[in-house]
Amino acid sequence: MTATPDAADRTPTDSHPTAPDPTDPGRAAAGPRTAAQRRADTEHRLTHDVDAWVATVDDAATPRLTVLSFLWDGSTLLLSTASASPAGRNLATNATVQVGIGRTRDVVLVGGTVEVVDRDTLSAQEGDAFAVKTGFDPRTIRSAYAYYRVRPVTVQAWREEDELAGRWLMRDGVWLA
Amino acid sequence: MTATPDAADRTPTDSHPTAPDPTDPGRAAAGPRTAAQRRADTEHRLTHDVDAWVATVDDAATPRLTVLSFLWDGSTLLLSTASASPAGRNLATNATVQVGIGRTRDVVLVGGTVEVVDRDTLSAQEGDAFAVKTGFDPRTIRSAYAYYRVRPVTVQAWREEDELAGRWLMRDGVWLA
Repeated sequence: MTATPDAADRTPTDSHPTAPDPTDPGRAAAGPRTAAQRRADTEHRLTHDVDAWVATVDDAATPRLTVLSFLWDGSTLLLSTASASPAGRNLATNATVQVGIGRTRDVVLVGGTVEVVDRDTLSAQEGDAFAVKTGFDPRTIRSAYAYYRVRPVTVQAWREEDELAGRWLMRDGVWLA
Repeated sequence: MTATPDAADRTPTDSHPTAPDPTDPGRAAAGPRTAAQRRADTEHRLTHDVDAWVATVDDAATPRLTVLSFLWDGSTLLLSTASASPAGRNLATNATVQVGIGRTRDVVLVGGTVEVVDRDTLSAQEGDAFAVKTGFDPRTIRSAYAYYRVRPVTVQAWREEDELAGRWLMRDGVWLA
């Protein structure tokens, strides 16, 4: 067990011998990844994964969890959804978001701030890249869609209990590794 | 595309031929599952999956996404984390939670209300079941841990764009299928 309340926030399921990760039973034996390896693995997921779990909050402080596709440009995540959807409204009214990428035992967790980007003002190049990556093009949808640019403030990455201690890869918008 | 704002909340990535699910390229051809099949698949995930993405909100209306293990008893989800952790504090102060189980293209999304359960008052039987399922036993941890019982109010399940229309399996705490 790690000692800080924050580190304790994830239940230590994986270090217990009765509950190895069934998809990768030998992994824990390899020990925690270095910071450089986590950074590389994180960049890989940001570049190649298509979908993310997106946690937003509405006006009544109700949490909302949504799945949205994303494009990573090296420094920001671009999302898109209908402006009138619950997630669209939340992203427009509450600039704080958390985005989970990967699997529950191979997590990249991004905390960031949101800027709404009108689809008419997005560059053609970025719009095209979004469409290619995600397989859908919000610019061509008749109803009102917007883009939402998430600027990471924090990034954490961990797989198992043994990686909780070194999971902070970015704080205050600055990569630590 | 579905017409309602709520349904539009998930980007329709999967129905586009350029972006098939790489892990299951043939699935979309099978068409959407029936309500009964979704219910059965959902019960299976609730019973057999170990980890969930848990979205909570803090006092400042900041969203928080966390990974926690869970036990399903047929009608409620039992979580546990350190009382002093951010998720623990959020779950104790804001009784609304959303829990995502599965993968981004095979989602079970539970919206519910939270009741804090002191670990000293949990039945031995349920505490044992939690320990066996999750591989960790909060009753044996020296620092203050609590259980959090999530009572589902809504349940949604979908895999691809073609399943958004029928994704509501529970509303107002009542199974629809």
